[in-house]
Amino acid sequence: MLPVFTDVVAAAGRLEGRVIHTPVMSSERFDARVGRKVLLKCENLQHIGAFKFRGALNTLLQLEAAAAADPASSRLVATHSSGNHGAALARAARELGWRCWVVTPNDASPAKLANITAEGATLRHCEPGLGPREAALAEIVAQTGADVVHPFDDARVIAGQGTAALELLSTHSSIDVISTPVGGGGLLSGTALAARGVVPSCRVIGVEPKVADDAARSFHSGVRVGMSGSPPTIADGLRGSLGVLPFEIFKNHVDDVLTVEEAAIVQAMRIALEDFRVLIEPSSAVVLAAILDGRLGKPGETIGVIVSGGNVDLSVCPFLSGERSVRAS
Amino acid sequence: MLPVFTDVVAAAGRLEGRVIHTPVMSSERFDARVGRKVLLKCENLQHIGAFKFRGALNTLLQLEAAAAADPASSRLVATHSSGNHGAALARAARELGWRCWVVTPNDASPAKLANITAEGATLRHCEPGLGPREAALAEIVAQTGADVVHPFDDARVIAGQGTAALELLSTHSSIDVISTPVGGGGLLSGTALAARGVVPSCRVIGVEPKVADDAARSFHSGVRVGMSGSPPTIADGLRGSLGVLPFEIFKNHVDDVLTVEEAAIVQAMRIALEDFRVLIEPSSAVVLAAILDGRLGKPGETIGVIVSGGNVDLSVCPFLSGERSVRAS
Repeated sequence: MLPVFTDVVAAAGRLEGRVIHTPVMSSERFDARVGRKVLLKCENLQHIGAFKFRGALNTLLQLEAAAAADPASSRLVATHSSGNHGAALARAARELGWRCWVVTPNDASPAKLANITAEGATLRHCEPGLGPREAALAEIVAQTGADVVHPFDDARVIAGQGTAALELLSTHSSIDVISTPVGGGGLLSGTALAARGVVPSCRVIGVEPKVADDAARSFHSGVRVGMSGSPPTIADGLRGSLGVLPFEIFKNHVDDVLTVEEAAIVQAMRIALEDFRVLIEPSSAVVLAAILDGRLGKPGETIGVIVSGGNVDLSVCPFLSGERSVRAS
Repeated sequence: MLPVFTDVVAAAGRLEGRVIHTPVMSSERFDARVGRKVLLKCENLQHIGAFKFRGALNTLLQLEAAAAADPASSRLVATHSSGNHGAALARAARELGWRCWVVTPNDASPAKLANITAEGATLRHCEPGLGPREAALAEIVAQTGADVVHPFDDARVIAGQGTAALELLSTHSSIDVISTPVGGGGLLSGTALAARGVVPSCRVIGVEPKVADDAARSFHSGVRVGMSGSPPTIADGLRGSLGVLPFEIFKNHVDDVLTVEEAAIVQAMRIALEDFRVLIEPSSAVVLAAILDGRLGKPGETIGVIVSGGNVDLSVCPFLSGERSVRAS
């Protein structure tokens, strides 16, 4: 069943005191650069370094409520994830005393895998791509009977992700456009639900890498298409395909989905570090890339951006991968 | 005259609504790494990207109050600065409608010089070292009659800098040790005054680069010594010599001054980016380097760190200077 605005509000109540009300940052230098007022909702500073903790914990809290009424519950949970959702579910499970398995594709970022194991989950590796991930997950479920928490095709997860935008729009209602990256579409879906409930006039726009443009093609054609294999984007969180529930929500509540080039993503990461002094993931940088390109929002408008995460392998990003020796300026 | 705790409180009142109450960040990963609880007071997210705005604005507001009572005032101000103080004074001057000159050494960071000119100040270049800086400043004063605002040897500046620690300790009174980098000593002095007033039991410790260890030598010998020339440290904000007023405050209110190696500074910047996801200057990283080295605070203690700034030339820091081309992981 599709989640609605009141599910986001209920999620916010459930999460109160358990998630960080992340700071909202702005940069006069960045605003001057782009001719727009840009507000970053810094979910890179959320627990586990990403918004994903909101959706995972919202789901786990509902599973725990059900388990509390069921003496036979074994309190096992499983998912597949390229990184942040896995760490998020692992942490939520740890906090509530559940066991957790995470299926991870072989091309996942080592930094993100380390985050998952640090939270106490058990990893199961598989080939990249949605098919192998779902097969490995099905196997775990067959073996253990674990509850599956899908990274984005789950109404509880989508409602949880929407709480970041709910926080942002509740305190910054002058936002003209709100934007998030799009991978499976859970964040943009939840954001759209929050926006429609709080600031109905606010436009909702997703951004994704051009080499992983399944959401844009689906949105503009009206027919959901998937990515085959693992697209070669540095934005490792956005390699998956658009989900079924997100696609339905996009059709009703999303205004546009844009795409950006790989070089623009890296450039946007660097500019974010210089202007805002925060480290954002390539997956988060896609939105800033579209703003820098002048295609997101109009001059003078206020743009709210959900910075999805800050988990970066410093060795993977070109400008972060220099030698480690010391050189005084 | 030496500033005292009540000057810091008065400065906080004067600055209310004009400075950012910067966020306090923590990282479970970093805490696990060092066996201490570390709270970062993120002045890298302050206006102009550094705590220096507090002291500069506190001074300018007092100069403006005097000028308002003097019809002949020409509202001119000047200083010398390797970067952040210059940008801070330039911005404070711009906000209050004053003109501003800044003497800058030739080895100052280009990123910091750009920040100064962006705030509308006029630059005057000179050779590195305290002598040439003071000579160039004296020349401007002779030509223009500008009021000089010293980067650290000024009671109004010191009191302003102390407001960052006042904010931190007012909300986190369980801090066992508070620590800042030491260049001229203005930040550590103001921090010490705030700590003695709010949490008298809190230890106050400064950290500086080993190759610019004049404050440590002065503190431990009881005789103020200066740096000759410009020491070869990547921490460009800490190349100056300890001031007269700070030295006197150190003698009464500071518990220790530690030194760290250059390689440890760079390593600490990288770890801050990974664990806290914020960009800090090399000058700020000295404190984290001492914590990582196990020499600052005891296991299990809570350490408050004033992160002094985030203005980094990405091209200067080794691990930030990689090529700009795109490489997908």
